[in-house]
Amino acid sequence: MTSSRTPQPGPRLSDISEERLLREILPVLPSGPAVLLGPGDDTALVRARTGAVLATTDAMVRGRDWLDEWSTAEDVGRKLVAQNAADIAAMGGHTTALLVTLVADPQTPVAWARDMARGLGAAAAEAGVAVVGGDLSSAPAGTLMVSVTALGDADTAPVLRSGARVGDQVAVSGTLGWSAAGLLLLQRDSAESGPDQVTWHRRPRPAYDQGPAAAAHGATAMLDISDGLVRDAGRIASASGVAVELQGSLLRDDVDALTPVVGDDARACVLTGGEEHSLLACFPEGELPAGWRRIGDVRTGVGVRVDGAAVAGGGWDHFERPAESEEPPPLHQE
Amino acid sequence: MTSSRTPQPGPRLSDISEERLLREILPVLPSGPAVLLGPGDDTALVRARTGAVLATTDAMVRGRDWLDEWSTAEDVGRKLVAQNAADIAAMGGHTTALLVTLVADPQTPVAWARDMARGLGAAAAEAGVAVVGGDLSSAPAGTLMVSVTALGDADTAPVLRSGARVGDQVAVSGTLGWSAAGLLLLQRDSAESGPDQVTWHRRPRPAYDQGPAAAAHGATAMLDISDGLVRDAGRIASASGVAVELQGSLLRDDVDALTPVVGDDARACVLTGGEEHSLLACFPEGELPAGWRRIGDVRTGVGVRVDGAAVAGGGWDHFERPAESEEPPPLHQE
Repeated sequence: MTSSRTPQPGPRLSDISEERLLREILPVLPSGPAVLLGPGDDTALVRARTGAVLATTDAMVRGRDWLDEWSTAEDVGRKLVAQNAADIAAMGGHTTALLVTLVADPQTPVAWARDMARGLGAAAAEAGVAVVGGDLSSAPAGTLMVSVTALGDADTAPVLRSGARVGDQVAVSGTLGWSAAGLLLLQRDSAESGPDQVTWHRRPRPAYDQGPAAAAHGATAMLDISDGLVRDAGRIASASGVAVELQGSLLRDDVDALTPVVGDDARACVLTGGEEHSLLACFPEGELPAGWRRIGDVRTGVGVRVDGAAVAGGGWDHFERPAESEEPPPLHQE
Repeated sequence: MTSSRTPQPGPRLSDISEERLLREILPVLPSGPAVLLGPGDDTALVRARTGAVLATTDAMVRGRDWLDEWSTAEDVGRKLVAQNAADIAAMGGHTTALLVTLVADPQTPVAWARDMARGLGAAAAEAGVAVVGGDLSSAPAGTLMVSVTALGDADTAPVLRSGARVGDQVAVSGTLGWSAAGLLLLQRDSAESGPDQVTWHRRPRPAYDQGPAAAAHGATAMLDISDGLVRDAGRIASASGVAVELQGSLLRDDVDALTPVVGDDARACVLTGGEEHSLLACFPEGELPAGWRRIGDVRTGVGVRVDGAAVAGGGWDHFERPAESEEPPPLHQE
């Protein structure tokens, strides 16, 4: 696909010095209680209260992970926080700090970089997360990429994908399929039919605290839904050596909520929609923590079934060429 | 500038699945003693022995940070480890773990990704560093970028840039100007005139242990030379509110060593050559640690002087357009 830039007025990165750009960006990036040393030296120093640090990294590339027509710079900054902090939450942790790398065509508007930093800084501040470092580099014409690394603390042992046991309940915290529904609406040029879903696609706001809450409640396995419910449930099934059996009746409300918005695609959005960043976890029999609802059970076997029928999850591969086309699809679900 | 790809035979990233690519890459990436949980779950978990973690991030972009004509994929992987681990060393720390993000044109040869991972893995293993996570993404045609985040432990308080005191000695551990000399030789198409310098440019091997050793010896300020001796000494001067006075006579051996290799450019390489990743530190009066040599002193005042004369450091800005040209220079010194 071709570049998706919407021309913006004003100065470009090539018009100002790196130092000046940093002077614009650094003030909008929050500090936080875990920061022992922030940006400006060779490295940052971040408290790791428990003597161990959770670490994950996730990048967004223009034309692959967002289109400028559909997502503002601020949206991109906010989504990067959500993607990375959801991974930390999915281990049962709290995110303490982020490092951010911007690799940009020198013709990128300064306003884009500033607005991305503003969105990222605002989402980080709302989550109590500091931005402690980063890197800037120029890139070939048309390329715009932001990479984030998140660090976090967990008070419990990390909740892996491999701990689910036969008899566990499968539960979700948060929405299902909203991001995919929002993307569908943008592709159909009818964002007004589902403003909440479009907003969730642009800037998901997972309930990060549900991760540590689930861990404290004894969750046996957990991840965040980045590639779709079925595909991600399949990861738990595979890592744990079990089958995940989802019940259509327990997903009925999720499908019904999206039907007015995307019609017959609602079921596919719920089952295979990615980038949702809601948490999916397994819990032993008994009461679920507040904010979690059961959608199925862990059984013997392999793979994921919905109402007893095996399903494939679809999902996105970053490099593989789709069978029908020479071009990669415009956006991926991760 | 235009793309600098050297055509390579064999399959491209678009020919194989992401899973298959990971199967090729993961086995060449080392684990290490600090790894409590490695790749494969939502995040890694890395020991932070002292209750705090050093964190830094540095990216390399093809055409900006390397040219395929001059650097192999393995060189790029090795250099990324050096750049990041030198930053950790410059705080007085040992690097424990790396996270690696590859953002690549789907037409990138699989062999390039595998060889980059092999170089990165080998350099990490030699330094006792684990690779614990990462991300893969496709990029617009012609773009190839690798971003690394390094985590580290320090047994001492981190050695900042701001602690230099009037009367301190200024000292360096390792070579000066070799990377710049190597780059000059590549630009002049005469790599055979200085194979050691060319190798240092392609895959610098800083003595990481000198960082913790300097910290234990009471270093008051430290950084690694990434943008050139004068420019980086200026950072210590500025952060510490002092002047750095370098002595030409103490740099004579460094200049003499490079004169047979790059002639009259030897002095400029020593004073302003970047990407060297040798450590520069200030120490109180007295004996220096083994492996360190004095090159000057900390004085009252501002900026950097060589034999009493103020000097400017030159150096690279990532986005600023050079005055004489519409095109960015082919490679930067960082």
